Parts: sequence; structure tokens; C-alpha cells
Amino acid sequence: MTDGTAGRPAPGAVGWTVPAAEALRAGPGYDLASLDRRSTPGFDGDKDAGRAAMQQRGEVLSVLQEQLYAHGRTGGDRSVLLVLQGMDTAGKGGVVRHVLGMVDPQGVALRAFGVPTPAEAAQHYLERIRAALPAPGRIGVFDRSHYEDVLVVRVEELVPVAQWEGRYDEIVAFEEEVAARGTTVVKVLLAVSYEEQAARLRRRLERPDKHWKYDPADIDARGRWGEYQEAYQAVLDRTSTPGAPWYVVPADRKWFARLAVTELLVEALEGLGLTWPEVDLDVAGELARLEATLP
Amino acid sequence: MTDGTAGRPAPGAVGWTVPAAEALRAGPGYDLASLDRRSTPGFDGDKDAGRAAMQQRGEVLSVLQEQLYAHGRTGGDRSVLLVLQGMDTAGKGGVVRHVLGMVDPQGVALRAFGVPTPAEAAQHYLERIRAALPAPGRIGVFDRSHYEDVLVVRVEELVPVAQWEGRYDEIVAFEEEVAARGTTVVKVLLAVSYEEQAARLRRRLERPDKHWKYDPADIDARGRWGEYQEAYQAVLDRTSTPGAPWYVVPADRKWFARLAVTELLVEALEGLGLTWPEVDLDVAGELARLEATLP
Repeated sequence: MTDGTAGRPAPGAVGWTVPAAEALRAGPGYDLASLDRRSTPGFDGDKDAGRAAMQQRGEVLSVLQEQLYAHGRTGGDRSVLLVLQGMDTAGKGGVVRHVLGMVDPQGVALRAFGVPTPAEAAQHYLERIRAALPAPGRIGVFDRSHYEDVLVVRVEELVPVAQWEGRYDEIVAFEEEVAARGTTVVKVLLAVSYEEQAARLRRRLERPDKHWKYDPADIDARGRWGEYQEAYQAVLDRTSTPGAPWYVVPADRKWFARLAVTELLVEALEGLGLTWPEVDLDVAGELARLEATLP
Repeated sequence: MTDGTAGRPAPGAVGWTVPAAEALRAGPGYDLASLDRRSTPGFDGDKDAGRAAMQQRGEVLSVLQEQLYAHGRTGGDRSVLLVLQGMDTAGKGGVVRHVLGMVDPQGVALRAFGVPTPAEAAQHYLERIRAALPAPGRIGVFDRSHYEDVLVVRVEELVPVAQWEGRYDEIVAFEEEVAARGTTVVKVLLAVSYEEQAARLRRRLERPDKHWKYDPADIDARGRWGEYQEAYQAVLDRTSTPGAPWYVVPADRKWFARLAVTELLVEALEGLGLTWPEVDLDVAGELARLEATLP
């Protein structure tokens, strides 16, 4: 850390003992297998404290998002891109709903990436990603992303190893280019445990109103759990860069996962150092024009 | 009304004496000029009652939205399109934020239509609208819409009268086509008063953090208030059809405007008569497969 905040939580971040970005960053040598997926790295509090912190920081996030939007509307080029990855049931949808649900929908550009359509499959895998990058002033959210092209594609051998092997470096170069255009990339791996995934799939099966979400293929993917974890480890090893680090969020406690992503976004937005745009406006003159319209 | 609910509010709609759709619909002979823009048609309650009703109905809206989404994910073709129109400061952004903010962002497709880009201006005015129509299962939201092409375009004489005059019928035909593809169109005019607009513009001018939102052109449009009201009246007269009626929501009380749009959406979604999709799923078999993955 060279920004002078090492070890200190972001201002106002009640309950965090260090910045979330520091507590959750996957640095060199990070070992995914050793993560306790019920842990709450960096946060010293229980579920109630977490909920209170989330609400408080949600209000901060909302103001920061509006500043980012204002910045974009007045010619600024900055944006933020939240990339969400994780196994089925890890809680990506819940993060979208509960974290991004705290800010103005007009400032959020959400995109879910499923199995490529035939048209997408005929293109380079980064083309559909590039087309969905956030405009200036926006918070883009990718529910799955280009990382599927080195995760499911690798594990299920959808393309030969020679083809996916080169993608790690290509993705790093792509994200450098994205950063250069003004987009801060926040990559979050929601890490749910094998046991918790079973409990969540069971609940889904036991609720008729959730059956439409259930896909028998989820159990097939579960059969390749170890290979998926290896593929995630390779992603962390090869694409967690200083400019676009991965954050690994233990996801067995939903409240923590949502709080952690909230805090990561707050820190990323605070890092932009935005203020309200200075607008060249003749306030007294406009007030006079306005009064002249009244009887 | 032929659906047997005339005069009765939607089930569970606390505070509404009649369905919002009935209280707010602009039928034949509707007179915009006579509307009290601080009134709360159909709702018998004050601000506190309105807030309680909004929260309660927001939860209903959230479940209905998820059912619509599930419907779309399982092959259904229905969707809903909320069209928001109104003078500057009428509260379109607040409706988007506070009403749509109550449902899952993944199910909402929001699009704001500003001054056409050069590429858009080179196309037929309905082309950019058509491209933004909601996919099955989604709630689409248009913050301004094709109606600008008979509002600002008419008042500011951006095209000759002979050109915009034909657009009313064209829009009616277009919306019939949209309905035929499965989209329920809910058109809302947020009607703010001349006096309240002045108060809101004044507050915007008095707050430095809102200056980026202030556009001196808003005062110019205010100078043509009467012409804009005439243009809105023409929209109501010529495009409020049985299949896609206009709802006029008095907008001087923000809490009422948001509550009314919430209720209109709830009623529209309930009108689809959706239930949770019946999925062909071998629950016992899947539970057995799941258990087999556990030690």
C-alpha cells in the first residue's frame, strides 16, 4: 500500500478493522483452498452489526454513485465495473439485488452473461464483454463475465487447452485497456462452501416457487467441484493484478457477502476522489429568471 | 369496465377506494387543465398512510415482478412497459428510483431517452424505441419516450406540423403492435403544477450539489408551459386507447406519485394472472442426486 491508508479502514466504515480491499484482496500466493467460507475477514461484528453497517454504508454508496453519475454527465470519463463470479447459489443475484438495490437504478448498468448465443459464439469471446462496458458515470455490473471463458470453458473442456491457456494474459491486457479508458474494475469471487451449496440447492428443491430457478446441471457442476476450485485458483494466480485485483468474499454468510461488496464499492468510489461537479452557473441570474415566471 | 372489478380496489390495496387504474385513467373527454395537481385520486389517506401502503404494496410488486421474470425464463412472452412522461421536475427520476428500486434490478430494463443522437436522428423516430422494448419477463421503463416526438418536437417546432401530425395515429398503431407481442403498456403522465415546478427549480438552484442537474433551458420550456399543456392534452385525446390508456398522476405530492405508480404496476402485473411456472422437475430424484454428493 502506498496511499497512506494501510491498516486503517475507510472513514466511517463502522466495524471494519482494515479496509475491505485489504482484507479481501487475493495477492500473490493467495490460497483459495484454505479460506474459511463462513469467515468475515476484516469485519469485527455479527449479523446485526453487519446489517446496521450495510444500511449506513449504503447511504454513503448512494451519494458516491450520484457523484459518479454527475461526473459522467458533466464530461468526466470515470466509471466502475463490478465483476461477480462464483459457483451456483454463491449469491450473485442477491448481491445485485441488495447492494445495487441501494443506489439509483439509472446509474447502474447490469448485464448477466449466460451461455453465448450463436451470434456471440461466432465472435471473439471478449466482443460481447466489450459491448457491455459501462459508459462514463455508470456502475457496470457483470453477473458472470469473460471469466467464464477460463472457468466453465476450461472445466467442461468446451475449447482445447491450447485455446483457453492464452486467455489469462489476454484478459489481463484487456482489463488494462479498460482501466486506461477510465473504468475501475472491482472483481469479486463469491466463495461459497461445498456444504453450504448443498443446503441452498436443497432449499431450492423444497420450495415450489423456486423450482424455475433449479437446473439439474447444477448438480453436474457440483460433481466437478474440485476442478472448478482449481480453475478459480488459476484465475486468481494469473489475473489478480495490482490494477485489477481479485477480491475473494467468503459467501456462506449472505449478510457478510453483501456487506463486503458494499464496502468494496464504497472504497473504489472513494478512491476516485470525486466531488460534486463545479458547474458554471449564474445562480442569482437564474433565480431572477425563475422569479420572473411567477405572477 | 368489463372485468367485474369496477369500483373495487385491487385485493390488499389498503387506502385505495377504487383501483388506481380506474381513478387515474384518462378516458374520453379527459380535461388536463382541470386537474388539481395536489390531489390524490382514489387514495384515501395522508402521507404516512401513503408511505405504509407503498411499502406493503412494494412487497407485492416484488413478488409479482419475480413471477414475471420466472415466466420469461420458462418460455413465456409477457412483459410490462412503463412509459414515464412529465415536465422537468415532475419526478420521473424519483419514480424510477423509489418504485423500481423496490424490485430486483435484474428484472428491470431502464432506458432514458434524451435528445436523439445524430445516428438516432437519421432514423425513423420509433426505431430507437423499438430497439429498447423489454424482453419477455422484464419490466421495461422508459424515462421519456416516443411521446417526446409529439411534445417537445411539436412545441419547439422541431419538425413541420405536417410531419408530427401523423405521429399520433402512428404511435397508436405501434403500441397495438407492442401489445400484440405480449407487452402491457402502462403510460403515466406525472402532472406537476406550474407553482410546484418553480419551487423545485428554486431548490435545485439553492443546492450546489444539484447544480449539475440544472439546465437553463428548463426555464425556457417553462415559458412555453401553456403550449406544453396543450401538447399533453392532445396526447391524451389521441393516444389514450383502451389497450394502452394514459394514467394522469398528480405529482405535486411526491409520495402520492410514487404510490400511484406502484399501484398501477401492481394492478398491471396482477392483470397478467401469472403464477409460479409449473416446472417438470423430479424433486425426489434431484434430492437423491444431491444427497449422493455429500459425504
